[in-house]
Amino acid sequence: MQILRTAKEMQAVADQQRRQGRRIAFVPTMGYFHAGHLNLMRVGRKVADCLVISIYVNPTQFAPTEDFASYPRDLERDRGLAEGVGVDWIFSPADREMYPEGYQTYVEVEGVTRNLCGISRPRFFRGVTTVCTKLFHIVKPHVTVFGRKDFQQYVTITRMVRDLNMDIEVVGVQTTREPDGLAMSSRNVYLKPQERESALSLSRSLRLAQGLYEGGEREAEAILAPVRTYIASHPHTEIDYVRVCDTATMTDVARIEDEAVLALAVRVGKTRLIDNHVFGEPLEM
Amino acid sequence: MQILRTAKEMQAVADQQRRQGRRIAFVPTMGYFHAGHLNLMRVGRKVADCLVISIYVNPTQFAPTEDFASYPRDLERDRGLAEGVGVDWIFSPADREMYPEGYQTYVEVEGVTRNLCGISRPRFFRGVTTVCTKLFHIVKPHVTVFGRKDFQQYVTITRMVRDLNMDIEVVGVQTTREPDGLAMSSRNVYLKPQERESALSLSRSLRLAQGLYEGGEREAEAILAPVRTYIASHPHTEIDYVRVCDTATMTDVARIEDEAVLALAVRVGKTRLIDNHVFGEPLEM
Repeated sequence: MQILRTAKEMQAVADQQRRQGRRIAFVPTMGYFHAGHLNLMRVGRKVADCLVISIYVNPTQFAPTEDFASYPRDLERDRGLAEGVGVDWIFSPADREMYPEGYQTYVEVEGVTRNLCGISRPRFFRGVTTVCTKLFHIVKPHVTVFGRKDFQQYVTITRMVRDLNMDIEVVGVQTTREPDGLAMSSRNVYLKPQERESALSLSRSLRLAQGLYEGGEREAEAILAPVRTYIASHPHTEIDYVRVCDTATMTDVARIEDEAVLALAVRVGKTRLIDNHVFGEPLEM
Repeated sequence: MQILRTAKEMQAVADQQRRQGRRIAFVPTMGYFHAGHLNLMRVGRKVADCLVISIYVNPTQFAPTEDFASYPRDLERDRGLAEGVGVDWIFSPADREMYPEGYQTYVEVEGVTRNLCGISRPRFFRGVTTVCTKLFHIVKPHVTVFGRKDFQQYVTITRMVRDLNMDIEVVGVQTTREPDGLAMSSRNVYLKPQERESALSLSRSLRLAQGLYEGGEREAEAILAPVRTYIASHPHTEIDYVRVCDTATMTDVARIEDEAVLALAVRVGKTRLIDNHVFGEPLEM
């Protein structure tokens, strides 16, 4: 396994692999790996001949008020974990390599990014789609793997790849969870013990919603109200959003008819957590 | 020579060429060819092993008030001319192939697009950078060829390719002119005989400016004032802009110190014409 720091080196490796007829899988990450990341890498390993991951905490997707500077980083630990699951190359550039002086180009997906995290984090998706476009041009993958915990991000990337005719297959992978149901996140390390307990209200509220859905409930508000009440009954929680959205457009639906997702963002103490569940899919916990 | 209508077919051809180790040159066009287009194709022919051109009048770069519907089109004639200069594939998609229902992704270069045509045509560059990104992903070229008559567009594409790490070489080609100096443009067919005469004031004013520059003049306003006066002295002309800009940032300069361009946009009758000259370069007419 090799760590590459420049776009030029990475592109040379990608060109060489492609010339040899080898399929490249790519998992973009911000590092500080948990079991969810390693699962994405294992999927990548299976669907192609070689596996590239990127480790890059992308400044353009953080607002000035957010945790860019304090976002957890541990390249040495990540390196060992990546090697353990069979990663071939880690692309880990410096900020000046990705955004040199005079940088001024952005990619924006307009529709599916408007709701949910697009409201609370107005620059977030523009940063994500821009850095992913850059990374796709650098790594030149045949297939890329995204976690579905960031469901709106997964829908946004899928939409961007299709709209811009990127010749890349996007694979979405189910959320990896702690044994008690908490969705894996690099930000879980921020949680104090009491907050960790309250954070369980997110995944449990997904079960609550799925139970209502399986019982025949299709009115969004009839599901949303008890979910909100349940989460709010836990100390240290502050709801950012709890919504039911169409998975194609990510706009709110009043009644579940086509494929719909229950999407949550909740501040637990100072830590913002997200989780989601697509109605009708198995809820693996 | 073959005409391809879908992104999928074009990508399959590009993949096949790349697997055989052949370099792909690409010239994006809106068709209705004149000698300038054919010159770009001849350059493309020389710098790679095979040559793809696109013919597509891109709706997203026209404002509702502009000439999208009436923009001149003649695919049969274009096909013969392209074949004559050795084009291998023409990619000519339908609008529904490029912008299907639900389309919502745009690429924007922020800095160099703000001035000049970015003022008079606010959506123009976003349309150009978006369609070029799509075409690059469809044609997968090693090298792409742009005319420098659209100088701000050439700078914008160069900036986008660098910012988004597209692994493509951008070649800029000098403006092709009529024997009397008028820059070739598909829109020249709109000009009535008297307007055609007045249109010469654009290229002649470039000579005027170059003369002053060669005589040692470096103050932008001292060059701009007589250029404006000269163009305005011709019937049917209405100046959109006449400016001296830094070629790296496309912002106005008061004094010519680094590389600078004199950029003109003038309405002659109902036809908007552009022309430009980079100070110090040979002015070939």
